[in-house]
Amino acid sequence: MRFHTRKWIKPEDLNANSTLFGGRLLEWIDEEAALYTIVQLENHKVVTKYMSEIDFRASAKQGDIVEIGIEVVKFGKASITLSCEVRNMMTRETIITISNIVMVNMGEDGKAKAHGKTEVEYVKDRL
Amino acid sequence: MRFHTRKWIKPEDLNANSTLFGGRLLEWIDEEAALYTIVQLENHKVVTKYMSEIDFRASAKQGDIVEIGIEVVKFGKASITLSCEVRNMMTRETIITISNIVMVNMGEDGKAKAHGKTEVEYVKDRL
Amino acid sequence: MRFHTRKWIKPEDLNANSTLFGGRLLEWIDEEAALYTIVQLENHKVVTKYMSEIDFRASAKQGDIVEIGIEVVKFGKASITLSCEVRNMMTRETIITISNIVMVNMGEDGKAKAHGKTEVEYVKDRL
Amino acid sequence: MRFHTRKWIKPEDLNANSTLFGGRLLEWIDEEAALYTIVQLENHKVVTKYMSEIDFRASAKQGDIVEIGIEVVKFGKASITLSCEVRNMMTRETIITISNIVMVNMGEDGKAKAHGKTEVEYVKDRL
Amino acid sequence: MRFHTRKWIKPEDLNANSTLFGGRLLEWIDEEAALYTIVQLENHKVVTKYMSEIDFRASAKQGDIVEIGIEVVKFGKASITLSCEVRNMMTRETIITISNIVMVNMGEDGKAKAHGKTEVEYVKDRL
Amino acid sequence: MRFHTRKWIKPEDLNANSTLFGGRLLEWIDEEAALYTIVQLENHKVVTKYMSEIDFRASAKQGDIVEIGIEVVKFGKASITLSCEVRNMMTRETIITISNIVMVNMGEDGKAKAHGKTEVEYVKDRL
Repeated sequence: MRFHTRKWIKPEDLNANSTLFGGRLLEWIDEEAALYTIVQLENHKVVTKYMSEIDFRASAKQGDIVEIGIEVVKFGKASITLSCEVRNMMTRETIITISNIVMVNMGEDGKAKAHGKTEVEYVKDRL
Repeated sequence: MRFHTRKWIKPEDLNANSTLFGGRLLEWIDEEAALYTIVQLENHKVVTKYMSEIDFRASAKQGDIVEIGIEVVKFGKASITLSCEVRNMMTRETIITISNIVMVNMGEDGKAKAHGKTEVEYVKDRL
Repeated sequence: MRFHTRKWIKPEDLNANSTLFGGRLLEWIDEEAALYTIVQLENHKVVTKYMSEIDFRASAKQGDIVEIGIEVVKFGKASITLSCEVRNMMTRETIITISNIVMVNMGEDGKAKAHGKTEVEYVKDRL
Repeated sequence: MRFHTRKWIKPEDLNANSTLFGGRLLEWIDEEAALYTIVQLENHKVVTKYMSEIDFRASAKQGDIVEIGIEVVKFGKASITLSCEVRNMMTRETIITISNIVMVNMGEDGKAKAHGKTEVEYVKDRL
Repeated sequence: MRFHTRKWIKPEDLNANSTLFGGRLLEWIDEEAALYTIVQLENHKVVTKYMSEIDFRASAKQGDIVEIGIEVVKFGKASITLSCEVRNMMTRETIITISNIVMVNMGEDGKAKAHGKTEVEYVKDRL
Repeated sequence: MRFHTRKWIKPEDLNANSTLFGGRLLEWIDEEAALYTIVQLENHKVVTKYMSEIDFRASAKQGDIVEIGIEVVKFGKASITLSCEVRNMMTRETIITISNIVMVNMGEDGKAKAHGKTEVEYVKDRL
């Protein structure tokens, strides 16, 4: 799994108990899944269709740095299935894991559309 | 299921395709689950522990109004399990459903703590 | 009065004295008045025209849950007048009251337009 | 009336009809009233107590620049009464006016406290 | 230098060390430079092209009030060069200074366009 | 240079001309520099002290994905100097570059403090 995006937990990311707000974490994951998919499928129009169960293993506090990892589980015809792990950068403690996030590739008509991809590509190899 | 909180979808809630950002929706659900639990358990310190699979059935667009429904599935000893549905207020179309959200009641020491509740109470009956 | 939308006061909602930021509260009320009107008038295009005097009776702190109640005062020809109360969900203490909020129904041309409604309708009765 | 703070209306400030969200405008006014009071009373602990009726005279759109003017109406013993006008910087059109905003000076104990001020002072004259 | 826009530092403006987040301050400066330019050049379409070195001289904390000053350094043919200073309103301590911010005037075609201005104008003198 | 954090440009990140708001971009860079420093110096308390001139080479639009690269230029005694580049992930076009960002390591007393580091370390090698 490759970890890219990092977040520095600031007061605006806390819940009313002053720990990392779970909803903010889900927001970060959904954004990361979307942009990973856009880069892989080379299509700006993608939507989140499904997330498998989510286990909140640990919390995090103000000042902690988290990093978000994404890995491809499977290429479908018009979709891509990802797995995600978020962890604390200093301690390597896992905060959350999601085994399957299904993202769908959309055509201009707003319907699912075949994307023609079958394996992970790196941007550097495309140019 | 009782539907309480309502949201008016504004530009700040959209993803880059100008439909409702899924991460924002998950943020709203997590907040609603937390505050529902706080009111039921009469304890400010609760955490989201688990969410079962999430099916994004429909999207929504700027100007739509969504309402968030929560129902108790089960009272555990130190936890409460909720189900959630988000729907479009005008069309009644279901946007998302989550069958099980497990919220844990925390003590002052940051550990799970029995809450002593076994059924839904209404605030008006408490006063 | 029916209380729907609930908010969990998080650090991002506080003023520099770490109590609920009054401006945030007014933002929540304006959104609730708008969406209530949209549902009643079955028209997405409504604007806030007037608010009567606002009395800030009590404050609230991080972790508190507030609920926002709206009631119809009067149906005008192209407008609707609402009253609003915000209260603390646990203590039932009233935080703010506004007796008259005038919302105007707009046509496609951006001008006030008759809405044809004369009484409160419930979404469930419409479907 | 002296106009200080200026805002550039960005997508995040719009309501679902893509005009300036009234709630955002009220948030800006409440912040401006608070900071004006803090500077005048030389006390960080102030709260908004009352706003007289609010007339939304005109709207504004993305890209417009608004400026917020504040004027002292009256010095009370533990309070200060302000008036406010928000206008469009290019056209000078008035967007909103509020005749009386009562701000209260608070002591360390969280109670109203005499502030000893009787007239407007300018920061440059204090130093 | 004329100081206009003022900000009240709230929890949402803090970094993870609970002092003013530098990124937020840069965001405020960029907005102020843009709106100053829009008013001077009487053109809504302007872009930030360049900022000279930035010295963070002092920090600020929750509850402080900062004011942002802008001054014209030079009128170019299709650009305007500004300088900026942000200071603490009560202590007059300087928080940040930027000697040159180059803003470019854009035409409808998205290219730099002559603006025809050679000196600072005040809105009150235009009307 | 290693590129980590990625951002998906959403409506809330746009300026009033509907292109990427420069202030938001500076906010993202400042956060990335801070968290990179925290990880390198293994100290949560760091501050931005200086940024060299900033050249805004290209803009970006809603739906674009940007990635932020950071590289160490020099290890000082109590500071670290970084360089930064932000680019468009699909086109590899450079959006902004900053040659020198000086971050200072702070002690508990809020004063600069020697950090004892002389070269880049990878988290995986520390554990």
